[in-house]
Amino acid sequence: MTEIHEECGVFGIFSPNRRSLAEIVYTALYALQHRGQESAGIAVNDDGIFTTCRDIGLVAEIFTREKISSLGNGNIAVGHVRYSTTGMDSRRNIQPLLINHYKGQMALAHNGNLTNAFPLRRELESRGSIFHSTSDTEAIAYSIVQARLGAPSIEAAVSTAMDRLEGAYSLVISSPSKLIAARDPHGFRPLCMGALPDGSVVFASETCALDAVGADCLREILPGEVVTISNDGLFSDMSHCGRTEEKLCAFEFIYFARPDSVINGASVHQARLRAGRFLAKEHPVAADVVIGVPDSGLDAALGYAQESGIPYGIGFIKNKYIGRTFIAPDQMLRERDVSIKLNPLRSTVDGKRVVLIDDSIVRGTTSRRIVSLLRKAGAKEIHMRISAPPFIAACYYGTDIDDPDKLIANHHTVEEIAEMIGVDSLGYLRVENVPCLPETSCGLCTACFDGRYPTSVPDDSSKSRFERKIHMSDERPKQEIKQT
Amino acid sequence: MTEIHEECGVFGIFSPNRRSLAEIVYTALYALQHRGQESAGIAVNDDGIFTTCRDIGLVAEIFTREKISSLGNGNIAVGHVRYSTTGMDSRRNIQPLLINHYKGQMALAHNGNLTNAFPLRRELESRGSIFHSTSDTEAIAYSIVQARLGAPSIEAAVSTAMDRLEGAYSLVISSPSKLIAARDPHGFRPLCMGALPDGSVVFASETCALDAVGADCLREILPGEVVTISNDGLFSDMSHCGRTEEKLCAFEFIYFARPDSVINGASVHQARLRAGRFLAKEHPVAADVVIGVPDSGLDAALGYAQESGIPYGIGFIKNKYIGRTFIAPDQMLRERDVSIKLNPLRSTVDGKRVVLIDDSIVRGTTSRRIVSLLRKAGAKEIHMRISAPPFIAACYYGTDIDDPDKLIANHHTVEEIAEMIGVDSLGYLRVENVPCLPETSCGLCTACFDGRYPTSVPDDSSKSRFERKIHMSDERPKQEIKQT
Amino acid sequence: MTEIHEECGVFGIFSPNRRSLAEIVYTALYALQHRGQESAGIAVNDDGIFTTCRDIGLVAEIFTREKISSLGNGNIAVGHVRYSTTGMDSRRNIQPLLINHYKGQMALAHNGNLTNAFPLRRELESRGSIFHSTSDTEAIAYSIVQARLGAPSIEAAVSTAMDRLEGAYSLVISSPSKLIAARDPHGFRPLCMGALPDGSVVFASETCALDAVGADCLREILPGEVVTISNDGLFSDMSHCGRTEEKLCAFEFIYFARPDSVINGASVHQARLRAGRFLAKEHPVAADVVIGVPDSGLDAALGYAQESGIPYGIGFIKNKYIGRTFIAPDQMLRERDVSIKLNPLRSTVDGKRVVLIDDSIVRGTTSRRIVSLLRKAGAKEIHMRISAPPFIAACYYGTDIDDPDKLIANHHTVEEIAEMIGVDSLGYLRVENVPCLPETSCGLCTACFDGRYPTSVPDDSSKSRFERKIHMSDERPKQEIKQT
Amino acid sequence: MTEIHEECGVFGIFSPNRRSLAEIVYTALYALQHRGQESAGIAVNDDGIFTTCRDIGLVAEIFTREKISSLGNGNIAVGHVRYSTTGMDSRRNIQPLLINHYKGQMALAHNGNLTNAFPLRRELESRGSIFHSTSDTEAIAYSIVQARLGAPSIEAAVSTAMDRLEGAYSLVISSPSKLIAARDPHGFRPLCMGALPDGSVVFASETCALDAVGADCLREILPGEVVTISNDGLFSDMSHCGRTEEKLCAFEFIYFARPDSVINGASVHQARLRAGRFLAKEHPVAADVVIGVPDSGLDAALGYAQESGIPYGIGFIKNKYIGRTFIAPDQMLRERDVSIKLNPLRSTVDGKRVVLIDDSIVRGTTSRRIVSLLRKAGAKEIHMRISAPPFIAACYYGTDIDDPDKLIANHHTVEEIAEMIGVDSLGYLRVENVPCLPETSCGLCTACFDGRYPTSVPDDSSKSRFERKIHMSDERPKQEIKQT
Repeated sequence: MTEIHEECGVFGIFSPNRRSLAEIVYTALYALQHRGQESAGIAVNDDGIFTTCRDIGLVAEIFTREKISSLGNGNIAVGHVRYSTTGMDSRRNIQPLLINHYKGQMALAHNGNLTNAFPLRRELESRGSIFHSTSDTEAIAYSIVQARLGAPSIEAAVSTAMDRLEGAYSLVISSPSKLIAARDPHGFRPLCMGALPDGSVVFASETCALDAVGADCLREILPGEVVTISNDGLFSDMSHCGRTEEKLCAFEFIYFARPDSVINGASVHQARLRAGRFLAKEHPVAADVVIGVPDSGLDAALGYAQESGIPYGIGFIKNKYIGRTFIAPDQMLRERDVSIKLNPLRSTVDGKRVVLIDDSIVRGTTSRRIVSLLRKAGAKEIHMRISAPPFIAACYYGTDIDDPDKLIANHHTVEEIAEMIGVDSLGYLRVENVPCLPETSCGLCTACFDGRYPTSVPDDSSKSRFERKIHMSDERPKQEIKQT
Repeated sequence: MTEIHEECGVFGIFSPNRRSLAEIVYTALYALQHRGQESAGIAVNDDGIFTTCRDIGLVAEIFTREKISSLGNGNIAVGHVRYSTTGMDSRRNIQPLLINHYKGQMALAHNGNLTNAFPLRRELESRGSIFHSTSDTEAIAYSIVQARLGAPSIEAAVSTAMDRLEGAYSLVISSPSKLIAARDPHGFRPLCMGALPDGSVVFASETCALDAVGADCLREILPGEVVTISNDGLFSDMSHCGRTEEKLCAFEFIYFARPDSVINGASVHQARLRAGRFLAKEHPVAADVVIGVPDSGLDAALGYAQESGIPYGIGFIKNKYIGRTFIAPDQMLRERDVSIKLNPLRSTVDGKRVVLIDDSIVRGTTSRRIVSLLRKAGAKEIHMRISAPPFIAACYYGTDIDDPDKLIANHHTVEEIAEMIGVDSLGYLRVENVPCLPETSCGLCTACFDGRYPTSVPDDSSKSRFERKIHMSDERPKQEIKQT
Repeated sequence: MTEIHEECGVFGIFSPNRRSLAEIVYTALYALQHRGQESAGIAVNDDGIFTTCRDIGLVAEIFTREKISSLGNGNIAVGHVRYSTTGMDSRRNIQPLLINHYKGQMALAHNGNLTNAFPLRRELESRGSIFHSTSDTEAIAYSIVQARLGAPSIEAAVSTAMDRLEGAYSLVISSPSKLIAARDPHGFRPLCMGALPDGSVVFASETCALDAVGADCLREILPGEVVTISNDGLFSDMSHCGRTEEKLCAFEFIYFARPDSVINGASVHQARLRAGRFLAKEHPVAADVVIGVPDSGLDAALGYAQESGIPYGIGFIKNKYIGRTFIAPDQMLRERDVSIKLNPLRSTVDGKRVVLIDDSIVRGTTSRRIVSLLRKAGAKEIHMRISAPPFIAACYYGTDIDDPDKLIANHHTVEEIAEMIGVDSLGYLRVENVPCLPETSCGLCTACFDGRYPTSVPDDSSKSRFERKIHMSDERPKQEIKQT
Repeated sequence: MTEIHEECGVFGIFSPNRRSLAEIVYTALYALQHRGQESAGIAVNDDGIFTTCRDIGLVAEIFTREKISSLGNGNIAVGHVRYSTTGMDSRRNIQPLLINHYKGQMALAHNGNLTNAFPLRRELESRGSIFHSTSDTEAIAYSIVQARLGAPSIEAAVSTAMDRLEGAYSLVISSPSKLIAARDPHGFRPLCMGALPDGSVVFASETCALDAVGADCLREILPGEVVTISNDGLFSDMSHCGRTEEKLCAFEFIYFARPDSVINGASVHQARLRAGRFLAKEHPVAADVVIGVPDSGLDAALGYAQESGIPYGIGFIKNKYIGRTFIAPDQMLRERDVSIKLNPLRSTVDGKRVVLIDDSIVRGTTSRRIVSLLRKAGAKEIHMRISAPPFIAACYYGTDIDDPDKLIANHHTVEEIAEMIGVDSLGYLRVENVPCLPETSCGLCTACFDGRYPTSVPDDSSKSRFERKIHMSDERPKQEIKQT
């Protein structure tokens, strides 16, 4: 029941024939909704004329039949779902970002975070550029447009721009006649390529979007690769590949990605099952039932059950209508917010020794409430197992973990945490078992668990100055409500 | 993955102290949302002044913080969620129904369906009454109001009115100073009573709503019972009890109720686990994995796995953002609609002999698509098991089953159905094992499985005339889209 | 600049051919918008199937192209605009009222107010009727429906029902196959009949609606007349005519009706010009310019100028975007609210002796502010002339005049009022010159000016009890903001 | 009844004390609503933190009480109303434009049109700038920001930027600590300065906004002047003044400005009265009544009546609820659209010789319909007089006149036009009598009447290429519907 958020999901399609593409992009974004619930957008490119629909809300709320139909036909289309990581976000940051520069007309969708966004922005502004959004995506766009002024093609401009960009970026870009996918040299965020039966080529953050639109998965975009699709065919620029180690975000396997996605050949569901199996080996315990916190703890719970031989049980019913709009009730009921989302099944846990699997503990508050619910439902013993290591460091690559000062694992031992949240025992997965997959040979970024950043990272004072400066929003900054 | 719908959920609260009740009712309706997603309403009674908020939409969409706060304080409140069974519904049918008759002022919430709605309405109209809605709830209101003219109290009027009502009704009614709960003598629909720590008494369709608001469950309202709460205490009128056999809807256990609810002392989750266990006994098969169709097939799948010893697996990922607003894509994609909602986990089923558990087959179309998805994901054998008997008859007590002519089991043998949906074997639960619970002694209505109606039922010609007559809507009748 | 409100405008059409009628009704309601800005509705009757669109808001806001098109084709249609006179109104009172009784199916639109609404409602309730709205229109509907049970036709039922109704009502009713227009025997509210080139017959509150749809005006419906149009032709029931004196509301000429309407053969614009001429004769003064308060004082100002020979000037510019939604600014600005709506033209009044014409003074506050604006713009003398007599009594026939206790003329002499609002002289029109038209022979109701009610009127204690009782609203009662 | 549109109105306020400024800006924009009905925005600057609310719609629709309150307190605020002149506009063009460049943070509101927008944009893009909107306001912002990099202050940057800008611009700009007003050297668009009693300084497009907020008018901003208000006081940079002739848009007097505004010391109402007087001298005729087409023809009609001695009459009633949302009815009714907005007063014109005053004829269609309405209402003779010369040329300074090819005066003589629109005689005002005011000494731009442009103007081929290129909209381009 992680309260940690990914920022974005991206999708792009290049069709050999002019047709209605918005439905396909819509369906793909629907499948990628878990990667961003704050806003979404589609840009359809009909022979150089870009038409877009972008708004705040869920995919199914934004894209009414009329909106989809008004997007018309096209050859290329790009889509994006977004989760905002800042309290001062606004309508201006919705993607795809449209650029109508006379040489660099494009629609751009970005997943990830630059680590040099602030100095890059400062440098661009000092040469007379104006930024309209608070997102680093605009800095990417500027870098490409300015490279384009001296580059023979848009894909060459992307490649040149990549020399200025540091950090995490999986990009899908439509120029007037081409569809381009690019991934940073570390490959922090996933990006895969697929094909539809009619010959259309698609790019997506996850394979679940390929499944949703009926595309076959061809392969991952390589770290550092720039793939360009046009009527002339597919061209791969690998000039940025192999310059550095692959560092795919480990949390994609642990929490972000949908279990039915396959990343670098590895099933996310299987990765979580195996995390559960490793947990069972690392932290065995005598118990009567293994239950998971829905939804992200369920796979690991089944893995723990399989490995340990303790029966798997359904421990909670999750209210499936919980949405962004749920109103936190008054003081008396606020204490009960977790119980509004989750209701324990007394018949599963009453009088039992329970192994409880979750994917993370951030501040500990949510875990304490879940444990308390189980106690009231009659659980005799509760042994909590976390299918990831403790969080100790901030992520600069597009994940919105809490302020490191608020992370419970930065201030307390495992024993102290166990006592604070009220469990009889607590065990975390070891870093070396993350994400514990034989099938994938890719290197993983585990910086949030061990503080070993694969790149230089912004110093915080500059970051906060930057954020203060750009506080020009269409609304008052919302009071940010965070819970663990 | 049943496409069958319950009509309503009801809730009521009587508080010894004047306070903000809307938040509590809101939280309860949130927990009852699965019983009706079309509209919702709350009526707060502040010493005889009724203030309401009723609208089309989901509970969390309708009740903004402003709306909840505008409902103000009160002593008594009533809430309702509704699923509309007709294509000609409108805003007028939203409940709670408010009656401002000088002797019978009340707010009324109803779950169920009268079987004598048409003759009752005709009789009332022929004496000069005017109906404003197309719901049978208004006929109940009329019966109570007219009984009230000669009755010493509102609860006496309810009791008198019950003599005219036939069919299914679980009612929660607020008069200016009393909260009344009543259940038809067969007890078709559930209705339970609970208490909050501050002494408030609450009524709800299911215990999951009691859990959500922090109330302890006291007991079920008895079939035929009228319970009245006022400042004078609780009064139970049992004059209609025991006149006939209890006939709780079996499908509440199989599909409607939330697994964390307890009805007549029986856990719904346990009932479904046991249905799975019975299925394993009735229809054993050699297989490698047991999977359920989310969400309602998961409990029975676990039961089947436990009884058979075949490992339980997670077979599908369900898109959790599927809402009322999902747009059916174009022709090419329409074939794919099930795959947009459900994506099979290849790593679970590839090369395996699979036992697939679902709770029902209506027309067979949905089942055929699910099976086809599993085949594409590599399933070697598929043995489908249904945790209920085949549907063969219409329900007149508040469940929206398809037209009996469209029910696949009315036209085909089990073997034919297996072939039509493409499975290697198919097995239904036997009627005598529904819902297979030792804990509950209540009689069950299984009319949709065996056609044995506990009451007389409307003849269809009168019903269709009735519906034609009352076609005065605020919109053109929507084209009804139904899928199985 | 009167703050007094009419309650309603009605329209109906019977077309010999099935066609799209909603556009015509929409256009007519648009022209009648001044008679009610709170809500509007259209009911289209397509061979007995009634489809409606009714909502809160202005006509042009409610009826989008989609809504109009969704109303489909029909033979008969009825429309209504409404101004609510109570603070506890709600969506339920929006007209046309739809009645789906098996013998009395109809859509009903009503302009006026019954004086026996309370006893009629009490009588109906005591025989078991339930009221859903707080409007007296429902009592009319009940009376018709109950009469219909024993009547040979709907028009006979209307005629019978009229025996039970007292007060003001201009009705347009669509039964499955007929369009009926009826007017109370006093003829308090106007109602006229016209014809379109294609043979359609239309009824409207004012002739301006006939002009808007391109219909020729045929004649007024007579006081007490019931006109029925069906495929059999036009039938006039005059059995209630001539029983009492005609008493058309004088304020229709003074303020309510649009100047381009013609009532009983008299031009409203001419009536106001003549009121101005009479004022000039009754209250002459030496001055440099005559100006009117927009919009309703302009005609009388021109009449005063013509009679007196003093030049006519444009004294104020009115902000034409003032709508229902204007937000009253904070304390400092609230004092300025009149100046936001009206800005005096300094070049017209600076250094001049000004005759200022308005149609009424209610509490005096607005007048005082207007006078103050003129003083600041340099007016040397201000001589106010009111084109109506002083208000001294409540209206029970559909006009929302302020509480008689708040009317300035009930507590002060003309001289005192002049001093209070800051003018150099003040003159009201004499009652015998209202509305001062040779062309019309109709009797006028001037009860608000002289307290001579043509009917018995409700005693206030019963009225307040009645209103208290029916306070069951979908919102908290709004704080009523009234200004003069 | 001109169908010609102004593009914008601007407002700014600098308050010595931190306070709620949004209400004041709201009130001012309300008074300026006639200058732009498509979108509106307010930016409040609270010590360098800019909060904005900008949306599509009317001022009173956008700024709910919640929105105004959410804008909070501040020292400086800027507001804007906008009419879009292109069919491809979108949400992105709503002003005030927010710039968050580290040296040039500002909110900018602009009225007017640059004549070198295309080459300026091309030049900026070729140096790596990216434009987000299709408005030339962004080119102004870029020019200021880039000048700011080398300028000692924001006001110095504005002054430097003005060297690059050609055409019409009245600007109000808030930097973190200053409020700046600037006007192009020709002074095409008006801009005035006023003071509130508390010492706040305000800038507005027209004095009617000063009246609305209770400010005294101090003076016009001079053509070419840059006025800066900060806590250090008021500073006027006149370095661009006097370089060229003043060329205030003549159509501001004829149509755009509100009659109660005063521009350069001249009352707009008086200017129109005098235009009417000149018309009477230039084109006298024997007639019985003089009427104006509401609203913009009324002042000139009164002037004509005064000069000629022919009585002034009220000839039309205009529906005051006509809004943006009015739906053009079907074919039969489309012919009647003018009659839905305007209804002639038969009692004024029947049997009379009528002088009809309007402010312009564009294509002639509307005039023909108005004349036809008067004929049907009985007018015996119709002598049309236009209070402006004929349109023959496009405006490049912010007025949306029709395509010159569509202007009736470009293809026909006055006699031909008279025949085409069906009048007995027709007369236009002579150019030398525009706007015919002794009080104002300012030079006027009359290019739309005589084709003498005070600046170089874009050549059309570049313009169309430019517009094609920047077609990247959030919607499909709307079919543009224009009527005269």
